[in-house]
Amino acid sequence: MRKRAASGPGSAPPATRQRMIEATMRLLQRDGYAATSWRGVVEEAGTPWGSAYHHFPGGKEQLAAAAVQLGSDLVVAGLEQCLEQSQTVGDGVRLWFSMAAKNLKQSRYRGGCPIATVALETAPQSTALAAVCGASFKQWETVLAARLRAAGLPGGRAVDLATLVVANLEGSLILARVRQSIEPVALAGETMGRLIDAEVAGSRAPSA
Amino acid sequence: MRKRAASGPGSAPPATRQRMIEATMRLLQRDGYAATSWRGVVEEAGTPWGSAYHHFPGGKEQLAAAAVQLGSDLVVAGLEQCLEQSQTVGDGVRLWFSMAAKNLKQSRYRGGCPIATVALETAPQSTALAAVCGASFKQWETVLAARLRAAGLPGGRAVDLATLVVANLEGSLILARVRQSIEPVALAGETMGRLIDAEVAGSRAPSA
Repeated sequence: MRKRAASGPGSAPPATRQRMIEATMRLLQRDGYAATSWRGVVEEAGTPWGSAYHHFPGGKEQLAAAAVQLGSDLVVAGLEQCLEQSQTVGDGVRLWFSMAAKNLKQSRYRGGCPIATVALETAPQSTALAAVCGASFKQWETVLAARLRAAGLPGGRAVDLATLVVANLEGSLILARVRQSIEPVALAGETMGRLIDAEVAGSRAPSA
Repeated sequence: MRKRAASGPGSAPPATRQRMIEATMRLLQRDGYAATSWRGVVEEAGTPWGSAYHHFPGGKEQLAAAAVQLGSDLVVAGLEQCLEQSQTVGDGVRLWFSMAAKNLKQSRYRGGCPIATVALETAPQSTALAAVCGASFKQWETVLAARLRAAGLPGGRAVDLATLVVANLEGSLILARVRQSIEPVALAGETMGRLIDAEVAGSRAPSA
């Protein structure tokens, strides 16, 4: 009851806000920031026109920031699931790339990374959106670096490897999308998995 | 005289067309496809308004395709220069990444890859633009793969490594742009250089 009261009398149910964020995320993935309009979001979400400004008084930038954050949270959840299901960090990374490839293919190469297009369109001009995009990539790297450290890698190298993994995912998703083939993502995932396996094994070997 | 006659009497000099393409390339690098308008191009290029449709009757998509092609040609020229200046393919790739990082920093993190943003915004919906973007990445990979084969790698592996190098450049440029730091590009360049060095050395070692 408190939640309802907080949105004011006659306001849309909380689900409307969430539906708008999810719709925006899909549109940002497919078309990017500049090509995503309020009208497009309202149509995609099937929400009342008036609710857009009610829920997002900060306009399109505020809505996009919430959508990027949701996209990033979903990526983190997927990454953590992959790491937990796998025996080694290398295998977890391979699985993460293969999930990304599967999702891209299932979307008929429309649903790429929920962050990359917005990041390239807006950084560094729109500092607010660039900050959310930057924090998203950092969030993934933090999860990866923690696992790499736990597997025995020194802190600095764990951070570098995590950055490399994210760069490989992002770059290979661009190529995959343009080519309409998941091959670049499979290749990048296998390369990163092998690099991680080798470095983890090397850190465990007795030093000379 | 023939050239002038071909554009018709009273038409803008050939330089106008080129200025428009160059201006569009800069705008696509900075803002992407959807955010680049005819008006913006005309202002950036300082060309007469009427010349836009005269030179590009196919509209914004035709102009963007020409700009992506110009961007790709410049990247290829840079890549070939880096490879020629270097003793090994690995060093050539390191130099290529460091040139890309330098250019990005000099543009104050506005001028990233001339292809990536357009590719993510338009693929696979706009097949014409997606095709030009795809052909651009392929063109870079072809140059790299030829050098890797010449250095002794088997054909299939040379193609895969070339794809990986381009994916690493593209992904690390996204992170660099959002972070306003060239570190991810330096890291990816060094990683790719080392991978290539190791595989080239391995292909030369006598097999067991």
